[in-house]
Amino acid sequence: MEPRISLVTLGVADLSRSRAFYERLGWRASSASTDTVVFFQAGGMILGLYPRRLLAEDARLDPQGSGFGGITLAHNGRGKAEVDRLLAEAVAAGATLLKPAEDACWGGYSGYFADPDGHPWEVAWNPFFPIADNGTISLPE
Amino acid sequence: MEPRISLVTLGVADLSRSRAFYERLGWRASSASTDTVVFFQAGGMILGLYPRRLLAEDARLDPQGSGFGGITLAHNGRGKAEVDRLLAEAVAAGATLLKPAEDACWGGYSGYFADPDGHPWEVAWNPFFPIADNGTISLPE
Repeated sequence: MEPRISLVTLGVADLSRSRAFYERLGWRASSASTDTVVFFQAGGMILGLYPRRLLAEDARLDPQGSGFGGITLAHNGRGKAEVDRLLAEAVAAGATLLKPAEDACWGGYSGYFADPDGHPWEVAWNPFFPIADNGTISLPE
Repeated sequence: MEPRISLVTLGVADLSRSRAFYERLGWRASSASTDTVVFFQAGGMILGLYPRRLLAEDARLDPQGSGFGGITLAHNGRGKAEVDRLLAEAVAAGATLLKPAEDACWGGYSGYFADPDGHPWEVAWNPFFPIADNGTISLPE
Protein backbone atom coordinates (compact mmCIF):
# COMPACT_ATOMS: atom_id res chain seq x y z
CA MET A 1 0.00 0.00 0.00
CA GLU A 2 1.59 3.27 -1.07
CA PRO A 3 1.96 5.55 1.98
CA ARG A 4 -0.66 8.16 1.24
CA ILE A 5 -4.08 9.38 2.28
CA SER A 6 -6.33 10.32 -0.64
CA LEU A 7 -9.25 11.72 1.31
CA VAL A 8 -10.16 12.70 4.84
CA THR A 9 -13.94 12.77 5.22
CA LEU A 10 -15.56 14.57 8.12
CA GLY A 11 -18.98 13.43 9.22
CA VAL A 12 -21.13 16.51 9.73
CA ALA A 13 -24.54 17.32 11.19
CA ASP A 14 -25.38 20.14 8.77
CA LEU A 15 -23.66 20.03 5.39
CA SER A 16 -24.49 23.63 4.45
CA ARG A 17 -23.18 24.95 7.75
CA SER A 18 -19.92 23.02 7.42
CA ARG A 19 -19.43 23.94 3.77
CA ALA A 20 -19.93 27.61 4.63
CA PHE A 21 -17.42 27.34 7.48
CA TYR A 22 -14.64 25.93 5.29
CA GLU A 23 -15.47 28.43 2.55
CA ARG A 24 -15.09 31.23 5.09
CA LEU A 25 -11.62 29.83 5.81
CA GLY A 26 -10.87 30.43 2.14
CA TRP A 27 -11.33 26.89 0.81
CA ARG A 28 -13.19 26.47 -2.47
CA ALA A 29 -15.61 23.60 -3.00
CA SER A 30 -15.12 21.50 -6.13
CA SER A 31 -17.81 21.34 -8.80
CA ALA A 32 -17.97 17.64 -7.93
CA SER A 33 -19.81 18.67 -4.74
CA THR A 34 -23.54 17.95 -4.51
CA ASP A 35 -26.38 18.46 -2.04
CA THR A 36 -25.11 15.37 -0.22
CA VAL A 37 -21.35 15.67 -0.27
CA VAL A 38 -18.79 18.48 -0.48
CA PHE A 39 -15.21 18.10 -1.69
CA PHE A 40 -12.29 20.48 -1.29
CA GLN A 41 -8.95 20.02 -3.05
CA ALA A 42 -6.40 20.20 -0.25
CA GLY A 43 -2.94 20.05 -1.77
CA GLY A 44 -2.53 16.62 -3.31
CA MET A 45 -5.43 15.21 -1.35
CA ILE A 46 -9.12 15.90 -0.72
CA LEU A 47 -11.16 16.98 2.29
CA GLY A 48 -14.71 15.66 2.12
CA LEU A 49 -17.77 16.67 4.14
CA TYR A 50 -20.57 14.12 4.35
CA PRO A 51 -23.53 13.64 6.68
CA ARG A 52 -22.29 11.77 9.72
CA ARG A 53 -25.01 9.09 9.64
CA LEU A 54 -24.38 8.34 5.97
CA LEU A 55 -20.63 8.22 6.55
CA ALA A 56 -21.04 5.62 9.27
CA GLU A 57 -23.46 3.65 7.09
CA ASP A 58 -21.01 3.68 4.20
CA ALA A 59 -18.38 2.11 6.46
CA ARG A 60 -20.95 -0.34 7.90
CA LEU A 61 -20.47 1.20 11.33
CA ASP A 62 -23.01 2.06 13.98
CA PRO A 63 -23.36 5.86 13.75
CA GLN A 64 -23.58 6.18 17.54
CA GLY A 65 -20.58 7.84 19.07
CA SER A 66 -19.78 10.59 21.47
CA GLY A 67 -16.90 12.47 22.95
CA PHE A 68 -13.37 12.58 21.57
CA GLY A 69 -13.22 10.90 18.17
CA GLY A 70 -9.58 9.96 18.51
CA ILE A 71 -8.30 11.82 15.42
CA THR A 72 -6.93 15.31 14.94
CA LEU A 73 -6.09 17.18 11.75
CA ALA A 74 -3.30 19.72 11.61
CA HIS A 75 -2.53 22.66 9.40
CA ASN A 76 1.08 23.74 9.68
CA GLY A 77 2.07 27.32 8.98
CA ARG A 78 5.44 28.91 8.39
CA GLY A 79 5.88 30.82 11.64
CA LYS A 80 4.35 31.75 14.98
CA ALA A 81 2.64 34.86 13.65
CA GLU A 82 0.92 32.81 10.96
CA VAL A 83 -0.33 30.33 13.57
CA ASP A 84 -1.86 33.15 15.62
CA ARG A 85 -3.42 34.69 12.51
CA LEU A 86 -4.90 31.38 11.32
CA LEU A 87 -6.42 30.61 14.71
CA ALA A 88 -7.99 34.08 14.79
CA GLU A 89 -9.33 33.61 11.26
CA ALA A 90 -10.84 30.25 12.18
CA VAL A 91 -12.56 31.74 15.24
CA ALA A 92 -13.84 34.63 13.11
CA ALA A 93 -15.22 32.02 10.69
CA GLY A 94 -17.15 30.35 13.53
CA ALA A 95 -14.70 27.88 15.01
CA THR A 96 -14.39 27.24 18.73
CA LEU A 97 -10.95 27.93 20.15
CA LEU A 98 -9.85 24.83 22.07
CA LYS A 99 -6.34 26.02 22.95
CA PRO A 100 -4.65 29.32 22.23
CA ALA A 101 -1.29 28.82 20.57
CA GLU A 102 1.62 28.35 22.92
CA ASP A 103 5.21 27.20 22.76
CA ALA A 104 5.28 23.41 22.66
CA CYS A 105 7.71 21.12 24.48
CA TRP A 106 8.84 19.74 21.10
CA GLY A 107 10.20 23.10 20.02
CA GLY A 108 7.32 24.44 17.96
CA TYR A 109 4.20 26.52 18.52
CA SER A 110 0.69 25.14 18.44
CA GLY A 111 -2.97 25.78 19.18
CA TYR A 112 -6.27 24.08 18.38
CA PHE A 113 -9.71 25.00 17.11
CA ALA A 114 -12.82 22.88 16.64
CA ASP A 115 -14.93 23.07 13.48
CA PRO A 116 -18.75 23.30 13.70
CA ASP A 117 -19.02 19.56 14.44
CA GLY A 118 -16.23 19.62 16.99
CA HIS A 119 -13.60 18.09 14.71
CA PRO A 120 -10.32 19.25 16.23
CA TRP A 121 -7.75 21.04 14.07
CA GLU A 122 -4.29 21.85 15.30
CA VAL A 123 -2.64 24.92 13.83
CA ALA A 124 1.09 24.64 14.30
CA TRP A 125 4.54 25.80 13.36
CA ASN A 126 7.15 23.05 13.42
CA PRO A 127 10.66 24.27 12.61
CA PHE A 128 11.81 20.68 12.03
CA PHE A 129 9.23 19.79 9.34
CA PRO A 130 9.79 22.19 6.42
CA ILE A 131 6.91 23.31 4.22
CA ALA A 132 7.54 23.76 0.51
CA ASP A 133 6.11 26.59 -1.57
CA ASN A 134 3.34 24.27 -2.76
CA GLY A 135 2.36 23.49 0.83
CA THR A 136 3.73 19.97 1.08
CA ILE A 137 5.38 19.15 4.39
CA SER A 138 8.44 16.93 4.74
CA LEU A 139 9.72 14.71 7.50
CA PRO A 140 13.34 13.73 7.97
CA GLU A 141 13.78 10.26 6.41
CA MET B 1 -5.90 29.55 5.31
CA GLU B 2 -4.37 27.62 2.44
CA PRO B 3 -6.52 24.59 1.66
CA ARG B 4 -4.34 21.80 2.94
CA ILE B 5 -3.97 19.29 5.73
CA SER B 6 -0.41 18.91 7.01
CA LEU B 7 -0.96 16.03 9.40
CA VAL B 8 -3.60 13.52 10.35
CA THR B 9 -2.89 12.16 13.81
CA LEU B 10 -4.53 8.96 15.00
CA GLY B 11 -4.96 8.46 18.72
CA VAL B 12 -3.87 4.93 19.56
CA ALA B 13 -4.02 2.62 22.55
CA ASP B 14 -0.72 0.85 21.88
CA LEU B 15 1.86 2.78 19.87
CA SER B 16 4.05 -0.24 19.10
CA ARG B 17 1.08 -2.24 17.84
CA SER B 18 -0.09 0.57 15.59
CA ARG B 19 3.38 1.32 14.26
CA ALA B 20 3.85 -2.36 13.43
CA PHE B 21 0.49 -2.45 11.65
CA TYR B 22 1.31 0.48 9.37
CA GLU B 23 4.79 -0.89 8.76
CA ARG B 24 3.24 -4.20 7.69
CA LEU B 25 1.21 -2.18 5.16
CA GLY B 26 4.53 -1.05 3.73
CA TRP B 27 4.77 2.40 5.34
CA ARG B 28 8.15 3.46 6.74
CA ALA B 29 8.40 5.42 9.97
CA SER B 30 10.47 8.61 9.89
CA SER B 31 13.58 8.96 12.02
CA ALA B 32 11.67 11.79 13.72
CA SER B 33 9.62 9.08 15.45
CA THR B 34 10.20 8.46 19.16
CA ASP B 35 8.89 6.19 21.89
CA THR B 36 5.91 8.54 22.21
CA VAL B 37 5.02 9.48 18.65
CA VAL B 38 5.39 7.91 15.20
CA PHE B 39 5.39 9.82 11.92
CA PHE B 40 4.97 8.50 8.39
CA GLN B 41 5.50 10.62 5.28
CA ALA B 42 2.30 10.15 3.28
CA GLY B 43 2.70 11.93 -0.02
CA GLY B 44 2.92 15.64 0.71
CA MET B 45 1.52 15.22 4.19
CA ILE B 46 2.17 13.23 7.36
CA LEU B 47 0.32 10.49 9.23
CA GLY B 48 1.02 10.60 12.96
CA LEU B 49 0.34 8.01 15.63
CA TYR B 50 0.12 9.27 19.21
CA PRO B 51 -1.34 7.87 22.42
CA ARG B 52 -5.00 8.70 22.44
CA ARG B 53 -5.02 10.22 25.94
CA LEU B 54 -2.08 12.49 25.15
CA LEU B 55 -3.67 13.53 21.86
CA ALA B 56 -6.84 14.61 23.62
CA GLU B 57 -4.80 16.41 26.28
CA ASP B 58 -2.84 18.28 23.64
CA ALA B 59 -6.10 19.58 22.17
CA ARG B 60 -7.46 20.35 25.66
CA LEU B 61 -10.24 17.83 25.11
CA ASP B 62 -11.68 15.28 27.48
CA PRO B 63 -10.19 11.96 26.30
CA GLN B 64 -13.48 10.14 26.93
CA GLY B 65 -15.19 9.04 23.77
CA SER B 66 -16.77 5.95 22.32
CA GLY B 67 -18.32 4.63 19.15
CA PHE B 68 -18.00 6.17 15.70
CA GLY B 69 -15.47 9.00 15.75
CA GLY B 70 -17.06 10.78 12.81
CA ILE B 71 -14.03 10.76 10.50
CA THR B 72 -12.88 8.35 7.83
CA LEU B 73 -9.64 8.21 5.88
CA ALA B 74 -9.49 6.94 2.33
CA HIS B 75 -6.77 5.48 0.17
CA ASN B 76 -7.69 5.53 -3.49
CA GLY B 77 -6.22 3.00 -5.87
CA ARG B 78 -6.10 2.88 -9.65
CA GLY B 79 -8.61 0.10 -10.33
CA LYS B 80 -10.94 -2.46 -8.80
CA ALA B 81 -8.31 -5.18 -8.65
CA GLU B 82 -6.01 -2.90 -6.67
CA VAL B 83 -8.81 -2.14 -4.20
CA ASP B 84 -9.39 -5.84 -3.62
CA ARG B 85 -5.66 -6.47 -3.25
CA LEU B 86 -5.18 -3.59 -0.78
CA LEU B 87 -8.10 -4.69 1.40
CA ALA B 88 -6.67 -8.22 1.48
CA GLU B 89 -3.23 -6.87 2.38
CA ALA B 90 -4.70 -4.78 5.19
CA VAL B 91 -6.53 -7.79 6.61
CA ALA B 92 -3.35 -9.86 6.35
CA ALA B 93 -1.58 -7.09 8.28
CA GLY B 94 -4.15 -7.34 11.10
CA ALA B 95 -6.93 -4.99 10.03
CA THR B 96 -10.61 -5.79 10.53
CA LEU B 97 -12.64 -5.88 7.33
CA LEU B 98 -15.64 -3.59 7.82
CA LYS B 99 -17.04 -3.86 4.29
CA PRO B 100 -15.81 -5.94 1.37
CA ALA B 101 -15.39 -3.81 -1.75
CA GLU B 102 -18.47 -3.42 -3.86
CA ASP B 103 -19.68 -1.25 -6.71
CA ALA B 104 -20.79 2.11 -5.33
CA CYS B 105 -23.81 4.15 -6.39
CA TRP B 106 -21.46 6.99 -7.36
CA GLY B 107 -19.80 4.92 -10.06
CA GLY B 108 -16.73 3.67 -8.25
CA TYR B 109 -15.73 0.67 -6.14
CA SER B 110 -15.13 0.82 -2.43
CA GLY B 111 -14.62 -1.16 0.76
CA TYR B 112 -13.49 -0.39 4.31
CA PHE B 113 -11.11 -1.76 6.90
CA ALA B 114 -10.48 -0.70 10.50
CA ASP B 115 -6.97 -0.30 11.89
CA PRO B 116 -6.04 -1.76 15.32
CA ASP B 117 -7.80 1.12 17.12
CA GLY B 118 -10.87 0.93 14.93
CA HIS B 119 -9.98 3.96 12.80
CA PRO B 120 -11.91 3.38 9.58
CA TRP B 121 -10.10 3.45 6.22
CA GLU B 122 -11.92 3.35 2.93
CA VAL B 123 -10.09 1.75 0.04
CA ALA B 124 -11.64 2.98 -3.19
CA TRP B 125 -11.35 3.39 -6.92
CA ASN B 126 -12.97 6.57 -8.20
CA PRO B 127 -12.83 6.91 -11.99
CA PHE B 128 -13.71 10.61 -11.73
CA PHE B 129 -10.84 11.61 -9.43
CA PRO B 130 -7.59 10.83 -11.28
CA ILE B 131 -4.44 9.81 -9.41
CA ALA B 132 -1.09 11.06 -10.68
CA ASP B 133 2.05 8.96 -10.79
CA ASN B 134 3.18 10.58 -7.53
CA GLY B 135 -0.06 9.57 -5.81
CA THR B 136 -1.76 12.96 -5.67
CA ILE B 137 -5.48 12.90 -6.39
CA SER B 138 -7.32 15.64 -8.26
CA LEU B 139 -10.87 16.90 -8.16
CA PRO B 140 -12.59 18.68 -11.01
CA GLU B 141 -12.39 22.43 -10.31
